[in-house]
Amino acid sequence: MTRRAEYSQQLYMKGLTILKVGGAVVEDKPSLRRFLDSFAAIEGQKILIHGGGRRATSVASSLGIESRMVEGRRITDRKTLEVVTMVYGGLVNKGIVAELQARRIDAVGLTGADLDIVRSHRRPVTNGIDYGCVGDIDRVGTRQLAGLLSAGAVPVIAPLSHDGRGNILNVNADTMAAAVATALAGEYDTTLIYCFEKPGVLRDANDGNSVIACMRRGDYEKCVADGTISGGMIPKIGNALNAVESGVRRVVITSAEHPDACHGTVIVR
Amino acid sequence: MTRRAEYSQQLYMKGLTILKVGGAVVEDKPSLRRFLDSFAAIEGQKILIHGGGRRATSVASSLGIESRMVEGRRITDRKTLEVVTMVYGGLVNKGIVAELQARRIDAVGLTGADLDIVRSHRRPVTNGIDYGCVGDIDRVGTRQLAGLLSAGAVPVIAPLSHDGRGNILNVNADTMAAAVATALAGEYDTTLIYCFEKPGVLRDANDGNSVIACMRRGDYEKCVADGTISGGMIPKIGNALNAVESGVRRVVITSAEHPDACHGTVIVR
Repeated sequence: MTRRAEYSQQLYMKGLTILKVGGAVVEDKPSLRRFLDSFAAIEGQKILIHGGGRRATSVASSLGIESRMVEGRRITDRKTLEVVTMVYGGLVNKGIVAELQARRIDAVGLTGADLDIVRSHRRPVTNGIDYGCVGDIDRVGTRQLAGLLSAGAVPVIAPLSHDGRGNILNVNADTMAAAVATALAGEYDTTLIYCFEKPGVLRDANDGNSVIACMRRGDYEKCVADGTISGGMIPKIGNALNAVESGVRRVVITSAEHPDACHGTVIVR
Repeated sequence: MTRRAEYSQQLYMKGLTILKVGGAVVEDKPSLRRFLDSFAAIEGQKILIHGGGRRATSVASSLGIESRMVEGRRITDRKTLEVVTMVYGGLVNKGIVAELQARRIDAVGLTGADLDIVRSHRRPVTNGIDYGCVGDIDRVGTRQLAGLLSAGAVPVIAPLSHDGRGNILNVNADTMAAAVATALAGEYDTTLIYCFEKPGVLRDANDGNSVIACMRRGDYEKCVADGTISGGMIPKIGNALNAVESGVRRVVITSAEHPDACHGTVIVR
């Protein structure tokens, strides 16, 4: 190889696709299977990050544990932590891994504690709210994830982190996906895809055909000001903009039926 | 193989210690922590395989699911499979991983589905007994395990396998430990340590000081014939002898308080 070719190869970054899929999809077997067919078909290196909150709520309820949410975030006491560790780290994660193995994808199910891939600290009491065993992410083990990816493995990550002192801490799956994508953006040409129940960011919430194709910070601020974007979409898109401003190539907000960059709303810098 | 050839092969093989620890230890926090301190102190490459049956029984009971055992083996219907996937693959496994990370051990929690490390088929109905979602092990992913070990990771394996068609199957942790040790014996100088509640195989069940230091097949057959070994110890030691006869260097049966080859009963070829 010439020096020049070597140099241009160094400039070339490998593509990496990180998908985040939520509870509504992973908890419905037929939807999950269709989604995993699409995920299996994605070429190149990839990572799946999943939720599972509804299942956690139903298991907690069967165990007589009440689920308390504040602004969409679960209050995680000791008992609830056991439930989410069981449901996210065991039931949901291993079910996905077995389904991917059946599709010849060499999946490996992980939490943030495994190989120390997501380290966090317990969130302090804020505005009088104690979220309990919930973590704010400090760092992502990019070397370990890159090692798995280069060995051909496909990490499947549950929204659980650890504090390095023996404690598991619950994290929001959207936040975890953004943190992992941002951490890996230095080494990979990274696309982060958020799959949710709608086909993208809609100009008219009642019209599935009104998907906004592309969004930059200016568009976002205008849409927030005029009320086109509201509620839970405000932090979701805000986080996506932070990710692209931190090096992630593009963030796609799309439906789980079309988990690729050809559908939905593409958020770029 | 001549003794000399065997000796020179040993020189080229890396040491590997595989520990199996049962439910009684992993479900009691202080015992688990003491055990993990000892495990962390073991030098060289190592793998931990754990049980968790008592916890599974208690979670199943809280969920109103009855646990049925036949000859010490759990009958695993669909609901019970969900419970063991949650408890073994999530609660117990990730708790151990987080505790090991706190001890600077780069643990990675796995089931047989992860990286396809333990493939099995569903056990057929035998003598009229349908064990349900229980697997008989077909093969162990030695390449994948060796890759993790050489990267400095410490696999922590839950007693769950998969069939390659999307289904998780429950396996006995003792059996899994023997299968993993046997599969890796071709590449490593392998010691398999079974930690249980007694200090070793006892000549007199009521005398903790009557540990039999070393056992070969001849001793075993004599002990079975004269009743020194009975009940669950018969298959346990039988499996250990099969392992050493298949290339595992030594199997140690000892207490979780002393998980090393200097205590308990050493079973050799």
